[in-house]
This record gives sequence, C-alpha cells and structure tokens, in this order.
Amino acid sequence: MSDIFTITARDPGSHARTGILQTAHGPVQTPIFMPVGTRATIKSLSPDEVRAHGAQIILGNTYHLYLQPGHELIARHGGLHRFMAWDAPILTDSGGFQVFSLVYGGIADEVKGRRPAHPSAHPDMVKVTEDAVIFRSYLDGSRHIFTPERSIEVQHGLGADIILCFDELPPFRAGYDYTAQSMVRSHRWAERCLAYHQTHGPAPVALTTGSVVPRQALFGIVHGGVFADLRRQSAEYVGALPFDGLCIGGSLGSDKSQMYEVVDMTVPHLPDARPRHLLGVGDVDDLLECVARGIDMFDCVSPTRLGRHGAALIRDPERRWKLNVSNAALRDDDRPLQEGCTCATCRTFSRAYIHYLFRAKELLGIRLVSLHNVAFLLNLMAEVRASIAAGQFPVLYQDWLGKSLRGGW
Amino acid sequence: MSDIFTITARDPGSHARTGILQTAHGPVQTPIFMPVGTRATIKSLSPDEVRAHGAQIILGNTYHLYLQPGHELIARHGGLHRFMAWDAPILTDSGGFQVFSLVYGGIADEVKGRRPAHPSAHPDMVKVTEDAVIFRSYLDGSRHIFTPERSIEVQHGLGADIILCFDELPPFRAGYDYTAQSMVRSHRWAERCLAYHQTHGPAPVALTTGSVVPRQALFGIVHGGVFADLRRQSAEYVGALPFDGLCIGGSLGSDKSQMYEVVDMTVPHLPDARPRHLLGVGDVDDLLECVARGIDMFDCVSPTRLGRHGAALIRDPERRWKLNVSNAALRDDDRPLQEGCTCATCRTFSRAYIHYLFRAKELLGIRLVSLHNVAFLLNLMAEVRASIAAGQFPVLYQDWLGKSLRGGW
Repeated sequence: MSDIFTITARDPGSHARTGILQTAHGPVQTPIFMPVGTRATIKSLSPDEVRAHGAQIILGNTYHLYLQPGHELIARHGGLHRFMAWDAPILTDSGGFQVFSLVYGGIADEVKGRRPAHPSAHPDMVKVTEDAVIFRSYLDGSRHIFTPERSIEVQHGLGADIILCFDELPPFRAGYDYTAQSMVRSHRWAERCLAYHQTHGPAPVALTTGSVVPRQALFGIVHGGVFADLRRQSAEYVGALPFDGLCIGGSLGSDKSQMYEVVDMTVPHLPDARPRHLLGVGDVDDLLECVARGIDMFDCVSPTRLGRHGAALIRDPERRWKLNVSNAALRDDDRPLQEGCTCATCRTFSRAYIHYLFRAKELLGIRLVSLHNVAFLLNLMAEVRASIAAGQFPVLYQDWLGKSLRGGW
Repeated sequence: MSDIFTITARDPGSHARTGILQTAHGPVQTPIFMPVGTRATIKSLSPDEVRAHGAQIILGNTYHLYLQPGHELIARHGGLHRFMAWDAPILTDSGGFQVFSLVYGGIADEVKGRRPAHPSAHPDMVKVTEDAVIFRSYLDGSRHIFTPERSIEVQHGLGADIILCFDELPPFRAGYDYTAQSMVRSHRWAERCLAYHQTHGPAPVALTTGSVVPRQALFGIVHGGVFADLRRQSAEYVGALPFDGLCIGGSLGSDKSQMYEVVDMTVPHLPDARPRHLLGVGDVDDLLECVARGIDMFDCVSPTRLGRHGAALIRDPERRWKLNVSNAALRDDDRPLQEGCTCATCRTFSRAYIHYLFRAKELLGIRLVSLHNVAFLLNLMAEVRASIAAGQFPVLYQDWLGKSLRGGW
C-alpha cells in the first residue's frame, strides 16, 4: 500500500469529498467518472477527443483483452496505453465480473437485480473452485482458467495504472449462505492477488514531481451482497489489507434504493484515507447519491451504450436523464442536445441533424451522441468536485435532483 | 457564367494545370479531390477532422437528401452547410445519377462498365420522358418526379456553392443510337436548368476580397458515352452554354483505359478557361492519369467505402493501392498504415491496433481507416498541385506510378 490518495476537501453535510489520486500516468481529481473502453477503445470515440472532453482515467476490461487480442500482444506493443494511444491513467478490472456475466449472458443485469440468472442454461460454461474459475470464451467457446495469480499476471501485461483483485460474483439471488461463502473465498483470493503482485509486480516509479507511486496500484474489492453484516465484515477485512484503494463489488441489490443502502452499510467501515470505487455505476442520480455517500470513483459503459442506441443524456430527471434522439419531435429541433453543454456535439450540431443521422442509420450519429454522453458525465463530475471544494455540494445536489440532500450523515 | 476560375500554372508536358476556383464559401485550389458526404455526412467522420486533414470542398447527393430528410427541412435549418456544420465549399450533384443507379441497384457499376444493368428487374422503378424522370424512393417505394427545374429547385434549397445540371444516364451497353438520343435530351435539360437557375437562383455574393461570385455556381454535364463524335459534340454544345464549369458524366467505358480515352476525346473540346470535373472517379492512378489529361476536380465515395470494409490506401501500385487491415500479417505490425503519412490515424495508431479493431468489429476501426483514406487522397492532390506549380508533375507521376508520363499531348 502506498499513500497515493490525498483528500483535499469535504462536504460538511455528507460523506462527499474531493481528492487527488496519484498514478504512474499522472494525477486524477476525484470524485471521478471513468469512461469504459472495454476492448481498448471507448466505443466509436478517439482517445484524443475523450481526453479533450475531460476524461482523466478510463477503464479497460481484462476479460475481453485477454481473449482478444491477448495481453501478450498488447504487452509487445508497449502495453495498453501505447496500444490504444491513451497517454493518461488507465484502470483494468480483474476479469472476474465478465467471466460470470458474459457466460451467463445476463448475470450483469442479474447482479444488479434486474433479472434472474440462468446458469443452468450454460452448465459447462463456467465453474468455480477454491483455486480458480474455469470458463469458456464468449468468442469461440475455447476453455480458459483464471486464478487470482493469472488475473494479476494478465493485468501486469496490460500495464494499467490501477489493477483490481480477482473475485467471484455470486448472483443476487444467491442468498446469505452462498454470498458469505463466496465472500470469504474472494477474501482468500484477494490475499493471493496481493502476494502475487508484491512478488511479481513492477517496481514503483518516481514521478517528475519527485513523489514515488506504484507503477501499478492494486485495489481490493469488498463483497457481501446486500447483507449489512457481510458488507461490514468484508469492508473491515479487505480494508485491513495493504491495498492502494478499495472497490465495492458484488451484488448491489435489486434497485437504486437498495444500492444506496449497500453503499451506506459499507463506506463507514472502509478506511477513510483510501479511494473508494463503486464498480459499474454511472446513472446521473446514482453518481450524485453515491458521491454524497463517500464514493470517489465510478465507471460505467452507459454513456457509449446509450449513445449507440440514440439516447442522449440531458438534464431532466423527469425523463430519467435521457432524450431519445430518434423521437419525431426532434425532427425540426434546432437546439443542441443539451442547452449550455460545452461538448463538441452540442457546440456544433442540432438535434434535428442528429435525429436525421439516426433515422438514416449514419455512423456519425452514434459517435456524436456517445461523445456528448461521455462529456455530460465528465462535466457533471467536474461540477461535483467544484461544488464540494466551494462548500456548495448540497446546492448542486438540489439543483440536479430537485430535492434536498438529506441530513443525518 | 461568371469568371470564377483562374488558371495559375500549367505542366508544359501534359494538360495538367493548377487553378483557383472562387466560391461563395471561399477559394478552392485545383486539381482537387472532394470527399463525398452522400447523406450530409462524410461517413463516420466529423466535418472538423475532414477539414483539418485538408478537404477544401465536399460533395453532397441531392437524390438522398431530397428523400431524407428533405431539402425543405435542410433549407429551414440554414442549408446544407449549417445543417451538417461544414463551413466551406460544397458541391451537390443533380440527383440524376442516383435516380438511375439506385433504382436499378447496380447501374452505377454498369455505367462504369463493371456489370450489365438489369432494368427489366424493376420495370416500374424508373421512367424517363422528355419532360421528367419518374422514380420510386429506395427508402419506401414512394413515387417521385424530377424535372430539370425540380432538380435545380431542390439544389437551391440545399444551398451548395456549386450545383449540377439534371441529366439522364444511359447505360454503357445502350449503344450509339440511344446514347445520342439521350445526350441531346440531356442538352435540352441543360438549357432548362440554366434558364430556371437564371430566373429563380439566388443573387451573386460579394466576397470580403471584393470579388463577386455566384451564390450557387451551375456546372453543365458532358455526355456521349464512349463515342468520340458524341463526346466532341456534347463538349462543344455544353461548353458553349454559360455554365460556370463543366463535368464529364455518363458512361466512361468498361475499364480504366477506356475511361482515359473518353477523357482524351472530351477535354480538348472543352473551353480551356473553365473548371472540369470528372464525376465519380477517385482511384490513385485515375487521379494522376486524369490530372495529366486536364481534369481539375474529382469526387468519389471510395475512401470511406474502402474504410468501412477495412481497406487502407497505401502507396503500393502492385497491391492496387490497398492494404486489407484484417489480414493476419498485420496482427503484430507496429508500423502505421502508411509510413510517412501525416494523418491523425497514422500519427497515432499502429496497424496491429487497427487490425485488432476490425477483428473485434469495433466502430473506431472504420473511422480510423476512413480518415486515413480521405487524408491520403487529399495529400496526394496537394502533392499534385505542388508538383505542377514547381514544374515537377512528370517526376511525381513517375514516382507514384513507376512509369514515365507519355509525351505527345
């Protein structure tokens, strides 16, 4: 564990805080939203425009990159930074999430409580033992084995600034007993990841500022599903290990309010001084609610996924923050996607043009809405940071969500 | 007719020449290649990056834009320039080419001699009379009528800097008699286009330089298929009308050598002082061969079409200027698509990365190769212009094509 995180301001009325996270590719201002570049690309966008729109750090998915083009190839080409031309911080996940979610084809939704998993539909696609997860590739059905050590080895090849422990994802409906059993196994795996990383990981690097940071920081993952005692137990256990930061993973419940409860039951038991990453969350209201609850880092595929489906993020809670650009009402709408938005899409193009591009199935439409959506969340987080620093977070919260930030933190 | 074209240099050994074409949106240096934005977008690319990579003028297709989103809608949104955010010269075609090529689903290839048309397969899809072309939409089968006047009216709505006369496209296999008959009808239509434009067209505009140029310049189109006497007759007829420039349209023969013959039999009969646009041509060798033959303007969808199919333009005549980026040989190739290319793709990404993007079916791959291909042809034309101005065009020709520019022009 290194001292890579400095808290720079706190909202007195909640757990919200700002900080600076030092990485081998420079500092990251938190709270932060990370665009996701699952397969070494923020879908349809170029790294330079994502950077120019304020992205400080992006996330890559180890599972996908391991299967295609392979971490050895990426390592031969100078690592993920050079391969995809992103000369700024990167975080990779461990592969655990996708091993389960892609094999079951829906466990991702299931983990978030949106629908039941059907592992029985693919009984030979994934198997968990004490030592490893054996799974088949979503690309060609080939058989692969991930151990905690293997996941860290693959992430060493990818070379991200922040890497994550390998974990199992028990489904939401797994129940208390399986969740507890899975959690303690993930704890054992966390210790194995740490040990392997300490032995085989790259040496720390000295920045031009003089400070020394890990070449690859390692974050642990807190489990325990929706059960308060397990979350506390996991937070204390993982928080006591020398991780550079801590993620909240596993099932976050069946709806947003349960997710907020899970965060509430976890954060107070985490070490205050270390950065906290809530995995896979990126809705506008979730970002604000979870910043209030003390989360520093977020990632989600939603801005680019919504972009591909023609849903633009807008500042309208009643529409659940989304504008369907294919809607006929936009046919002659000369306004930008979001009034006041400073992104290249909104500075340049009308809703009418973007509506037309989607109707005509032109690729540029996907690109323009994806860029806007990424910029929208990056700009929101910049506002969040500024508001915390200025002591105005409750004002911003009220402004966006139309309700007061509750007291009693 | 206005004096919008100034010849600035000539290659003494061929018909190659440089010039400046004045438009309402600024000057265009010729010889020029125009990227094609068929449906108000250079497919997958943003207008600012196309502009930044040297595009001076782009082409839009009246047929597509008339059907979707409609020229009235585009006019309401400030014309095509503002609608698609391209604040530089635009040329629109008349719709004639696509009325025929899209209806027959292959007449475009057929006109270029690549395969026979099968109009009998769609007997009710297009009908030509003395007055008009009646056709059905490729989108929904709805019935539409284009007259010469209607084409110009639609192009007035789109608002391009250069617009084209409406013409019929007889198929390559039409034979002498039909080609001659069609040609004289296109001549009559050319006069109707001129008359309508003179009466209903926008007033000329004064540039900040003080010179006055047409708000919309009108170009005529020379027909006559592969028949030397018809080409001469058409060149002289259309060249005698007060058009601002002249296009070579219709069937250009069954192969490249026949296309060069068609250009050879046409150009000497065109007025020297007016710009000449060879419609729909954009292969590397064709650009060089036809610049030598006195062509000033080219357009082609090939850079973006090739880009979508993963073919990158490279400086290798033996590979017919194309590199298949999906080829397994590129898997570990750390070089740019083209050594020495200054485009953003080649400055930033390796062949290995682009190969991977295409294998993974990631949208960014299409974008990166399309941008490279557009830049490749724009850079070639910049080299062509510089070489003519420096008296070095034969050197450039030899350098690219590996053979001497023939004498005896």
